Amino acid sequence: MAVEWSGLGPELLLTLERTGRGPLGAQMQEQVRDAIRSGRLAAGERLPSSRALAQELGVSRGLVIDTYQQLEAEGYLTTHAGSATRVAPTQQQLTAPTALQSAPPRLDIDFFPSLPDLASFPIRDWTWALTEAARRAPTAAADYGDPAGLEALRTVIASYLRRVRGAATDAQHIVVCGGFTQGIGLVLAALRAAGMTRLAVEDPGHPDSAVMGVRAGLEPVPVPVDERGVVVAALRASGARAVVLTPAHQTPTGVVLASERRQELVAWAEECDGLIIEDDYDAEFRYDRQPVGAMQGLAPERVVNVGTVSKSLAPTLRLGWVVCPTWLVPPVAREKQLSDRGSPGLDQLALATLIESGRFDRHLRRMRGVYGSRRQTLVDALAEHAPHLRLTGLAAGFHAVAHLSRGTEADVIAAAGERSIGLYGMRRYRLDGSAEPPALVLGFGNVSERAIRRGVAAIADLL
Amino acid sequence: MAVEWSGLGPELLLTLERTGRGPLGAQMQEQVRDAIRSGRLAAGERLPSSRALAQELGVSRGLVIDTYQQLEAEGYLTTHAGSATRVAPTQQQLTAPTALQSAPPRLDIDFFPSLPDLASFPIRDWTWALTEAARRAPTAAADYGDPAGLEALRTVIASYLRRVRGAATDAQHIVVCGGFTQGIGLVLAALRAAGMTRLAVEDPGHPDSAVMGVRAGLEPVPVPVDERGVVVAALRASGARAVVLTPAHQTPTGVVLASERRQELVAWAEECDGLIIEDDYDAEFRYDRQPVGAMQGLAPERVVNVGTVSKSLAPTLRLGWVVCPTWLVPPVAREKQLSDRGSPGLDQLALATLIESGRFDRHLRRMRGVYGSRRQTLVDALAEHAPHLRLTGLAAGFHAVAHLSRGTEADVIAAAGERSIGLYGMRRYRLDGSAEPPALVLGFGNVSERAIRRGVAAIADLL
Repeated sequence: MAVEWSGLGPELLLTLERTGRGPLGAQMQEQVRDAIRSGRLAAGERLPSSRALAQELGVSRGLVIDTYQQLEAEGYLTTHAGSATRVAPTQQQLTAPTALQSAPPRLDIDFFPSLPDLASFPIRDWTWALTEAARRAPTAAADYGDPAGLEALRTVIASYLRRVRGAATDAQHIVVCGGFTQGIGLVLAALRAAGMTRLAVEDPGHPDSAVMGVRAGLEPVPVPVDERGVVVAALRASGARAVVLTPAHQTPTGVVLASERRQELVAWAEECDGLIIEDDYDAEFRYDRQPVGAMQGLAPERVVNVGTVSKSLAPTLRLGWVVCPTWLVPPVAREKQLSDRGSPGLDQLALATLIESGRFDRHLRRMRGVYGSRRQTLVDALAEHAPHLRLTGLAAGFHAVAHLSRGTEADVIAAAGERSIGLYGMRRYRLDGSAEPPALVLGFGNVSERAIRRGVAAIADLL
Repeated sequence: MAVEWSGLGPELLLTLERTGRGPLGAQMQEQVRDAIRSGRLAAGERLPSSRALAQELGVSRGLVIDTYQQLEAEGYLTTHAGSATRVAPTQQQLTAPTALQSAPPRLDIDFFPSLPDLASFPIRDWTWALTEAARRAPTAAADYGDPAGLEALRTVIASYLRRVRGAATDAQHIVVCGGFTQGIGLVLAALRAAGMTRLAVEDPGHPDSAVMGVRAGLEPVPVPVDERGVVVAALRASGARAVVLTPAHQTPTGVVLASERRQELVAWAEECDGLIIEDDYDAEFRYDRQPVGAMQGLAPERVVNVGTVSKSLAPTLRLGWVVCPTWLVPPVAREKQLSDRGSPGLDQLALATLIESGRFDRHLRRMRGVYGSRRQTLVDALAEHAPHLRLTGLAAGFHAVAHLSRGTEADVIAAAGERSIGLYGMRRYRLDGSAEPPALVLGFGNVSERAIRRGVAAIADLL
């Protein structure tokens, strides 16, 4: 049944259906609200009496009274003893949002750096772990947990990091977070609160470190990187007392931080009461030898190690950890509490279950094979199609650096884009935005071997 | 097999086991690292030659060379051409953390306000939804998603809020977040960046609002609440241009924001270009009538509605939403991106699946029955055991307010604590910490009917 009602004043259309659209009262409320919002019922306008409207619509008077009372309680209508129900003076319409940034065109082959192979995310292992965790979770697991992370997961992570990364830590020194971005954000906020004002960042380095520094109120200071990693003399001269580093596999140059630099950095931190923030983002993935252990193990009271499963499992999980020096545990945990009261509990239990079951290690072993082959395919394809192109960077992680001739970086990237191939230049990683010396940072983590070969052939064609 | 080795200098015990403790190389690395960290091998100390150590341990020389190289790369050892391998100068031990705050004693009956019934969290429905979502998720779902939230979930939330809360919104105006705390944190950071300096908060009100304001760099300004909700004249006089409110069910007084106050608030926001932050924390739960719709529907460009599943499902899920005015969408989404690059993707898809399946509504219907009964049990038990105690607050949410005689709040709470009953006073909710007029804020969400009766009898005994 559809009933139309022409109200007093401008035409008001009220359509109630007795089947399929929910309770009549809810329909009436929604339509009167919409009529007010759209301006069909204007501010101050008088509504018919409940008796008259009920008669016209063929519904009970009680239903109309309920509707009027509900909308009066919500502020859409006003009633005063002895006078009619009227539309309240102020209502607003929702503005249409400005068009969102249109998505970039889909690329045929995308060498975007630092993505893992998304198709290899072991989603069945993950749902298995979630189901197991949920099955075993006590009632209290539904509550807010410790904002620093559930002890079950912190214990498993500490053991994993001691075993795999040579870390010197335990569950009490770990704060669980929502991935690297949140982890460094928590640490930087704590440093700012402790009175630090500057943050040294690697140059070239990941552009987000400087962005996060600014967000935390710290002035980013670039420190050069050479083939042995960050230049400690320049760090010492910078006046900063905190630095973000990628020791295992520098982003983007792909070098490992040298042994004596590690020693110098610890000495620097001791001298200036400083802190080294170790971004251990892809440290599980080295293909030619055992990964070099975390700096954290060398100086656990001077190094914060920040890790994540974004590369080892998948970015969508949004889980990571901050391994803190003792003094930093309370402020980082407090920042986490004020940020979001802790990461999702069941996800934390699932990650603990996955690591403990051995499935996490098994996945890593398998992926080291996959990525090692992809990197070798990249090396071989470049040797075949573009032998003049020098490739640098460890056999590690998800990217390698290909060096270009002077003044060609932007042109090569643009020409590749026209052929639907995504390339990314060293310029993105330099704090001054310089494109010299020019190079490509080639990500191979989320590109199949076939696509790597096709892509390299096409790039060689451009050069 | 266990082999012991006494090194040069202080005694060094190296125990390798051929079975059950992992690869010999990893064991050797871990034990030398530990010996250095613990000081058993001191800085500068000379290690035996790889040949000598290999012989002593009965392992291949290659294994010892690998171990030395690994620990040299990590900075624990130094080697110089033609001279011996030595322990590097700087290493550190991890300090034992200061004892964490000891957990409060477990209470026999805990009337902590604002917790839902944890045992009723539909964990099987949730794992069903997760599994369904994972089964249907495309490969791209493993990637970082839109930091503002997956469109699938934003669409479902918008539709839910239009239907259940009378909201005027769509998927483009919603940012998914990790619960109420993160949601308000994102909004306040955006307001601070837009030049606001003060934040009006309800007094009495949830103490976290003021804490979050301070964290965002906003000065909290208390505004009194009476039996019709926040006093708008006082808000107008405060000079603040943003206010955090709990219109559906005020925390802690339990009143609903009156119709004319809603109108006045919208007029206030229009006059001063202000913003109303609507904390819709327990709006699904009203037991005597339909919940009053969200203020957001009345003025979608002046009201931010922040909601969460912490009360409707469980706090552990850490999922919520911010319904933004148009201008606030980009800055809030940007804050979310810089905070954690978005909430976990599979959890978002699971929530969308749960709501769409109808299981979420079914759970809410069931829980309204459970909580309505618990509230009635509280009312009845107080009428029986302490008829002089005046109870106020709507038949809604998870708490009610019981008024005490002058000067008794702290004593009643302390005496109850001694009997292992958790009580919480109005004092917690007043910005000046005043305990007058005294009252208890009695949470009944996570207390069984039996425990409510026992608890009330015991309280009555105390009074």
